[in-house]
Amino acid sequence: MGFLDRVQAAMEKNNSLLCVGLDPSPERFPASIRTMEKPVFAFNKAIIDATADLVCCYKPQAAYYHACGAEDQLAMTIDYIRTQYPAIPVILDSKRGDIGSTASQYAIEAFERYQADAVTVNPYMGIDTIEPFSSYADKGTVVLCRTSNPGAAAIQNLSVQQANGESAMLYEVIARMCQEQWNENNNILLVVGATNPAELKRIREITGDMTFLVPGLGTQGGDVEATVNNGLNSQGKGIIVNSSRGIIYASGGDDFAQAARNAAIELRDQVNFYR
Amino acid sequence: MGFLDRVQAAMEKNNSLLCVGLDPSPERFPASIRTMEKPVFAFNKAIIDATADLVCCYKPQAAYYHACGAEDQLAMTIDYIRTQYPAIPVILDSKRGDIGSTASQYAIEAFERYQADAVTVNPYMGIDTIEPFSSYADKGTVVLCRTSNPGAAAIQNLSVQQANGESAMLYEVIARMCQEQWNENNNILLVVGATNPAELKRIREITGDMTFLVPGLGTQGGDVEATVNNGLNSQGKGIIVNSSRGIIYASGGDDFAQAARNAAIELRDQVNFYR
Repeated sequence: MGFLDRVQAAMEKNNSLLCVGLDPSPERFPASIRTMEKPVFAFNKAIIDATADLVCCYKPQAAYYHACGAEDQLAMTIDYIRTQYPAIPVILDSKRGDIGSTASQYAIEAFERYQADAVTVNPYMGIDTIEPFSSYADKGTVVLCRTSNPGAAAIQNLSVQQANGESAMLYEVIARMCQEQWNENNNILLVVGATNPAELKRIREITGDMTFLVPGLGTQGGDVEATVNNGLNSQGKGIIVNSSRGIIYASGGDDFAQAARNAAIELRDQVNFYR
Repeated sequence: MGFLDRVQAAMEKNNSLLCVGLDPSPERFPASIRTMEKPVFAFNKAIIDATADLVCCYKPQAAYYHACGAEDQLAMTIDYIRTQYPAIPVILDSKRGDIGSTASQYAIEAFERYQADAVTVNPYMGIDTIEPFSSYADKGTVVLCRTSNPGAAAIQNLSVQQANGESAMLYEVIARMCQEQWNENNNILLVVGATNPAELKRIREITGDMTFLVPGLGTQGGDVEATVNNGLNSQGKGIIVNSSRGIIYASGGDDFAQAARNAAIELRDQVNFYR
């Protein structure tokens, strides 16, 4: 079963389009976790056990593990999901991008070392940075298209003159390349932020039923109703709605896992309400 | 002393614009190294000891360390350079890029965990992905501008309509943003591939005396004379010429370090011949 089939199955099993982002900052853990030998894994395990029946995937953010030298705990986290909750796929959010020979090494990192089901990739270097990932046909390659951060527009909304003489914004050009040229194995997804629903709608128009990873709800301020209305595909799916800090840090106390569960239920239900 | 000052000093000390890329693939090591307990570090150490008087910096490529789980040996490598050859700065080539809060974690990885002197960064997500790096004023932030890989042109050479009504290629727009808007701490460099000298010349015109990291000579086929002629700034410097595989795998036998030294001398001297 390919990555997109596995995500679809998890969406149906848990009636959920929610992805929980695992972005562990040890300084935000309760003291009872922070003092453990493997605090990052302990924190993630508690979050996963509290939310695995509520999500369609998990998304560990590589930067947080690299910053504190916790690659072993990233591996333990992904392995824990794979063995305890095999129905839930894992997107490694590492936004890799490099020339082909180097991108191949990053693909080995994501898919062989960590056994992730999908990885996020930056398109600035073109198809040779995408293909080493997307050639793993049963894995997902999630290409940055229109990101949720304030500075993104200065680049991604640049007006590009296309070969046909028409102009389009850079993010539209990337979306079209992914749809028409880069998706040979039908395993490309796009990152499309929730912070601008009109752009989400535009990318939906360009890409048919392609699946989007949608960050930017919660802490970053995206609107659930507008995201769902503009993002869903013709199957009433097609969006993986990510929330990280809004869920995993719903409480800073010893009740953090229960609080994360409550926050996950609330966001899952909000998304389902507007579907 | 800031990163650019340290690079300048190393350029003068060793009369060299050469950067040796440390991209270790254990399967390409001689058997005598491959069977060691820390083969990646042993290989790097031999290369470094053989070339430290010939280079202006070193550039470990993060992907190769991540692929084989050798983060500890990446740390050992950078630490070895810092302690044994403190005049030679280290660029961590990891092409990071993410929203501000996450980019801050990648900056901690590069500058605090590994104590690198500079890091490569992808501009697709805009200024919030650059600033967490460039705010470390004494470190270098090396922004991808026009990369050396075959697929780069499909994105980086897109024709962009600018606010003043004129059109420019995307890489030119990035170069200008780096020069005019993003370089508050005067510590931004650009990645400009050697594979297209006309574009190298164009980026030199846009950015004055900014320093470029120039990959693409050697294995990738760039021409030394054209690179030097088009890349040098008004000070007769301004380019850090990188070679990785062409130097570190000059021989696959037990003479790999001596062969690397010979290859480094040859490329350094070729570059100096055209200066």
